[in-house]
Amino acid sequence: MNTLKTQVAIIGAGPSGLLLGQLLHTQGIANVIIERVSGEYILGRIRAGILEQGFADLVREAGVAERMDAEGEIHEGFYVANNGKSHRIDLEKMTGGKVVVCYGQTEITRDLMKAREGAGLQTFYESSDTQLHDVNRETPYVTFKNNGEDFKLECDYIAGCDGFHGVSRKTIPEDKRTEHERVYPFGWLGFLSDTPPVSEELIYAKSERGFALASRRSATRSRYYLQVPLTDKVEEWSDDRFWDELEKRLPEEDAKKLVRGPSIEKSIAPLRSFVCEPMQYGNLFLVGDAAHIVPPTGAKGLNLAASDVATLYKIMTRVYHDGDKSCIAQYSEIALRRVWHGERFSWWMSNMLHDFGDTKVNDMDAETFDRFMSSELDYFMNYEEGRRVVANQYVGMPYEDLH
Amino acid sequence: MNTLKTQVAIIGAGPSGLLLGQLLHTQGIANVIIERVSGEYILGRIRAGILEQGFADLVREAGVAERMDAEGEIHEGFYVANNGKSHRIDLEKMTGGKVVVCYGQTEITRDLMKAREGAGLQTFYESSDTQLHDVNRETPYVTFKNNGEDFKLECDYIAGCDGFHGVSRKTIPEDKRTEHERVYPFGWLGFLSDTPPVSEELIYAKSERGFALASRRSATRSRYYLQVPLTDKVEEWSDDRFWDELEKRLPEEDAKKLVRGPSIEKSIAPLRSFVCEPMQYGNLFLVGDAAHIVPPTGAKGLNLAASDVATLYKIMTRVYHDGDKSCIAQYSEIALRRVWHGERFSWWMSNMLHDFGDTKVNDMDAETFDRFMSSELDYFMNYEEGRRVVANQYVGMPYEDLH
Repeated sequence: MNTLKTQVAIIGAGPSGLLLGQLLHTQGIANVIIERVSGEYILGRIRAGILEQGFADLVREAGVAERMDAEGEIHEGFYVANNGKSHRIDLEKMTGGKVVVCYGQTEITRDLMKAREGAGLQTFYESSDTQLHDVNRETPYVTFKNNGEDFKLECDYIAGCDGFHGVSRKTIPEDKRTEHERVYPFGWLGFLSDTPPVSEELIYAKSERGFALASRRSATRSRYYLQVPLTDKVEEWSDDRFWDELEKRLPEEDAKKLVRGPSIEKSIAPLRSFVCEPMQYGNLFLVGDAAHIVPPTGAKGLNLAASDVATLYKIMTRVYHDGDKSCIAQYSEIALRRVWHGERFSWWMSNMLHDFGDTKVNDMDAETFDRFMSSELDYFMNYEEGRRVVANQYVGMPYEDLH
Repeated sequence: MNTLKTQVAIIGAGPSGLLLGQLLHTQGIANVIIERVSGEYILGRIRAGILEQGFADLVREAGVAERMDAEGEIHEGFYVANNGKSHRIDLEKMTGGKVVVCYGQTEITRDLMKAREGAGLQTFYESSDTQLHDVNRETPYVTFKNNGEDFKLECDYIAGCDGFHGVSRKTIPEDKRTEHERVYPFGWLGFLSDTPPVSEELIYAKSERGFALASRRSATRSRYYLQVPLTDKVEEWSDDRFWDELEKRLPEEDAKKLVRGPSIEKSIAPLRSFVCEPMQYGNLFLVGDAAHIVPPTGAKGLNLAASDVATLYKIMTRVYHDGDKSCIAQYSEIALRRVWHGERFSWWMSNMLHDFGDTKVNDMDAETFDRFMSSELDYFMNYEEGRRVVANQYVGMPYEDLH
């Protein structure tokens, strides 16, 4: 058994764990990351690409923003198409100057990994049998296996950044947490392609054939999505079939600009709303997907993880710099308030933009629900105060300070 | 059989039927009203008291606004209390100058009845066996019994203003209409009292004990409501019990200003969202409650009836003045668009402000739904763009012109 010691043990080397580690490092707070898979595997995951300004600022504070600021695109707005009619949400104008940054999660992760490596901070990739111990005592520790050896990592605090399926949340006794969940009766088929994107800004398209999202990673890399039945298999979606269907769901003027090309990645993901309350137990803090999942409509997943990181970072800084441990108890309350706003926004956008088919939703038959949501989309797109509500939530609610 | 002839037969002498009749009369369009109950019975119904500006303007156009303008109160805002914390919705500021008028539905009805009587327009109160015939032919007619005699009223058009339980909607064949419905797992206990209201502006109060509304009819007449289980009986609610419960649900600073007194009227009403599509069939037009019901949270019931009246009035005027019958087909589409906005607003306000107890709602367990709605209320009250959305829908969406 190899015994190590650190201040903050971080479970998971995804963007949340890496960003937290980097931020803590800038404040001289020691941290070690334990990750189940390899760095290459993590970089192979294709995820979100829209960063709220708060997130971008946090990456800057961590000193890892050089490439993001050089290559990331500032998006001052996006489009919502309602059965062929496009409405632009002018983020900058509607929010008093706020914007979002379009920069792939994979790229952020790559930048953070490189910075961590450069700073010589310890990361145990491909670890197995990770277990958290004594998390509600003063001296928690983590055990894991790495490269055939047994490790014990002693620490003051544990940040559970290990995602929905990770060990961290499950470490909280079942009677000490409440899990809220909603599953949706459809999934998203994602399609990555090295072709010029159809639009400089994102297009969220509601159509009678179902939802489509025209997104992008850069001027030469497109990311498209289609709402599909959960029973669909990726193999059933040839590249041609994907492009044909996408063309039918986008507004005509956009559809005719589509540049087709082979898929680099293609996968189907279910949509889920999930929140675990509270987000802390003793000296264990849940961060990001470990505590909450949102459907991707609204681009909130990574951004909610970032605000958790911001809150935990502020707490750890106060704990180690000021010796004030009383602020620890604020984590869950502060994090959850913003999480629920993001959950609600994502749920709402999903409700408005998808076709729920014959599924009974919200205590109403599908057709009634559809009427409500059509009226909702109509109102929020056609009236300025409605567009303001969409815009202000899309750029993200402000980060809350500690009390 | 007495045979009569008119241009527009109006079924129902509630505020919609009376207002429509008066407006048509100002344009020289003949109309006859057939009503099931007596005028006194109608005036005994205690209903809504908040009129959108569009409605108030329509009453002025009908030339029946004298008392409303003298005695009605202009309300420039209202309060939403979220578990004790009050937020003011500044209608005038948030909507660029729009307000609502507080004037009881009973008073409007009384004024309209008086004007109708003064103009010598025919109204058959206490009619029975009313039946609509040949509504999708060029020569529809209505048969009914009145004072022991049989009547046949020949007409060009029929306006079904006879409410949810009336004969008009049921005259449309079942396969020619779709009915959308949502029932709520609670009711409202209304309480009318000749005591000074607790507040100059309405207070919509969400509390852990359930919803309460502090409303008013005048400076000396209060109208209060409590959310109650549907299984409750009025007899179980003594005046004292009502006041005690109301006191607990209102914010403390308001509660201590409550002036108690005996109830003049006390009743429990269920909450329902209901829409019938389309709202017309041949030469029969459904108006108000005959086609749609909203839960009272949001004060939209009477106001949606008024916009139906406005639309039908414009159509009839064009038909009789310009001889243009092509606009008839627009009624349902134009009316329904505004109806769905009002339905959605009422549904949304109801969802945010009530306690749903253990009822599973919106595909979520009650606790999860409560979290979403708490976050929703928090957002829409604490951010200006949110308050603007509430305010603009509260004062009412603009009336749509004919194409």
